[in-house]
Amino acid sequence: MPTSEPQNRQFRLAARPQGLPKPSDWSFVTTPVQPPGEGEVLVRVLYISLDPAMRGWMNEGKSYIRPVQLGAVMRALALGRVVRSQSPDFREGDIVTGALGVQDYATLPARELHAVPPGIAPLPVFLGVLGMPGITAYFGLMDVGRPVKGDTVVVSGASGAVGAVVGQIARIVGCRAVGIAGGPEKCRYLTEELGFDAAIDYRAEDVRAALKRHCPDGINIYFDNVGGDILDDCLALLALHARVVVCGAISQYNATGPIKGPSNYLSLLVNRARMEGMVVSDYMARAPEALRAMGQWLAEGRLKHREDIVDGLETFPETLLRLFSGENFGKLLLRVAPEA
Amino acid sequence: MPTSEPQNRQFRLAARPQGLPKPSDWSFVTTPVQPPGEGEVLVRVLYISLDPAMRGWMNEGKSYIRPVQLGAVMRALALGRVVRSQSPDFREGDIVTGALGVQDYATLPARELHAVPPGIAPLPVFLGVLGMPGITAYFGLMDVGRPVKGDTVVVSGASGAVGAVVGQIARIVGCRAVGIAGGPEKCRYLTEELGFDAAIDYRAEDVRAALKRHCPDGINIYFDNVGGDILDDCLALLALHARVVVCGAISQYNATGPIKGPSNYLSLLVNRARMEGMVVSDYMARAPEALRAMGQWLAEGRLKHREDIVDGLETFPETLLRLFSGENFGKLLLRVAPEA
Repeated sequence: MPTSEPQNRQFRLAARPQGLPKPSDWSFVTTPVQPPGEGEVLVRVLYISLDPAMRGWMNEGKSYIRPVQLGAVMRALALGRVVRSQSPDFREGDIVTGALGVQDYATLPARELHAVPPGIAPLPVFLGVLGMPGITAYFGLMDVGRPVKGDTVVVSGASGAVGAVVGQIARIVGCRAVGIAGGPEKCRYLTEELGFDAAIDYRAEDVRAALKRHCPDGINIYFDNVGGDILDDCLALLALHARVVVCGAISQYNATGPIKGPSNYLSLLVNRARMEGMVVSDYMARAPEALRAMGQWLAEGRLKHREDIVDGLETFPETLLRLFSGENFGKLLLRVAPEA
Repeated sequence: MPTSEPQNRQFRLAARPQGLPKPSDWSFVTTPVQPPGEGEVLVRVLYISLDPAMRGWMNEGKSYIRPVQLGAVMRALALGRVVRSQSPDFREGDIVTGALGVQDYATLPARELHAVPPGIAPLPVFLGVLGMPGITAYFGLMDVGRPVKGDTVVVSGASGAVGAVVGQIARIVGCRAVGIAGGPEKCRYLTEELGFDAAIDYRAEDVRAALKRHCPDGINIYFDNVGGDILDDCLALLALHARVVVCGAISQYNATGPIKGPSNYLSLLVNRARMEGMVVSDYMARAPEALRAMGQWLAEGRLKHREDIVDGLETFPETLLRLFSGENFGKLLLRVAPEA
């Protein structure tokens, strides 16, 4: 902790984006660090998680969480180090996660922070497999998808932070995992490194034809991160009593017109199938259950992970866009400060 | 039973319709009545049930039931009187239901027939409340929708054979029932005769605005018989953990282009809601459970019904179209022969 208070750089939401967020949708400001009050903690942000859900938080209107207000610091999950604490729950040097925002320093109530236990895994993993994306994958698959041994599980956005975990858990619980991703490199990663049974390159292949080939008995669980045409392709191939987990729809988040609804939704009727949405925050009370299982699989080497780390808070506006262009490969993180 | 074998008139599927079925999609033929073989029963058809699902049976392609083959008698549920039996299970004069087809006489195995108990209700009711539409409504609402006392249940096609039962059961189990139907007469029927809490005339009102007014706390269960824009309107207003029962999509059955997918499906995510398809044939083993409950409600006068009966087998092609134009009001039946 330097003796003179450092400055805090923040990205604030300046305008509600139409389509892809533009540079002018942000303001990048420097303000004094806010000292922690009673019960509060000051955190130096180290890694910021960039997630597709952030695009939704920028829109006005009712959703599962209130929108980021215009002029407010952009909401983001992040990991940081406690630099000053006015709470008995945290000490200087502790590593914590929470909704720290897109900024260098966060000052917030201790109760909004989660302690990161030392020595279990590299810090970025606590924003990935052992963070929100991992918990999303775990409960989305296990609780909403309800896999049965032998099921064929298809996941889109399969090399992403959530999708990669979904496919690997599917394998661990005895299912076949088929991943859909963009480009040969990601597809190779799925089958050769993560152990997926098959991978479909949506940029190069006819997805419907490839699904037919890889899912000869139909799809028992489709874990949807993308929406759009791929959702329709999967709906067309559902097996009887299939489950479609609606986790996200990244292909539609920047739509300026109406969202593409799944034209094949009557497959739910034909196949007595279920399509159900999930939001990870509903599962926070049960997070330890997911973290225990995944911590063990990580330790056993059965759960692999990959991060895509970009340096510099100032790169936030363009780095965020990598999520929507499909450029990023692995859990996308901004490194804001060195770990030590 | 006349001594000389009567002739049998049949509607056979002559072509797979594009859009609304045309007269030329049918052939109307007269053939000798087929005498029943060992274990078979000859049935004089009295009432034929005309159901939206029939449109789907005319299409090629995988569905929950195999399509009607070109040249085959059109499939239809119907009620008739046994005129000759080669099975110990049925006697001459017994009233039965089954997939008798669009014809004057049906010859089929006794095991494909259900006996209608005498004296419980007028015969048409066994093709309505105490038949497939009633069983669909019961299990669709109770098993898939899972109503909780105080829920707001919205049903479309609300004056139809399924919808009217859904709304009335919803009321009986302690829910608010809001029906969507076409025209002031049907809407009045819903609120004044069936006891719905509110009715929305989709031909005269802005459905979304009316739903907002009648469902101030959102929709807990939407029982969908129509698809299209009304499905989107209901999705937009789901309450947390809502259930959407996909029972039918009559607005889309004659579409010649792609079906309109629900653009607001991400409301499932925002509201952690579930959209699930159902097919009544899955519940046939449990039919007695539904029939017991509904038989009692009928006897108590708590479940009302209305039939729309058209005379003459020969009117089948144009009478069927009344389902899709919204002209029919109540359970649509063809009367093929007098009851006695």
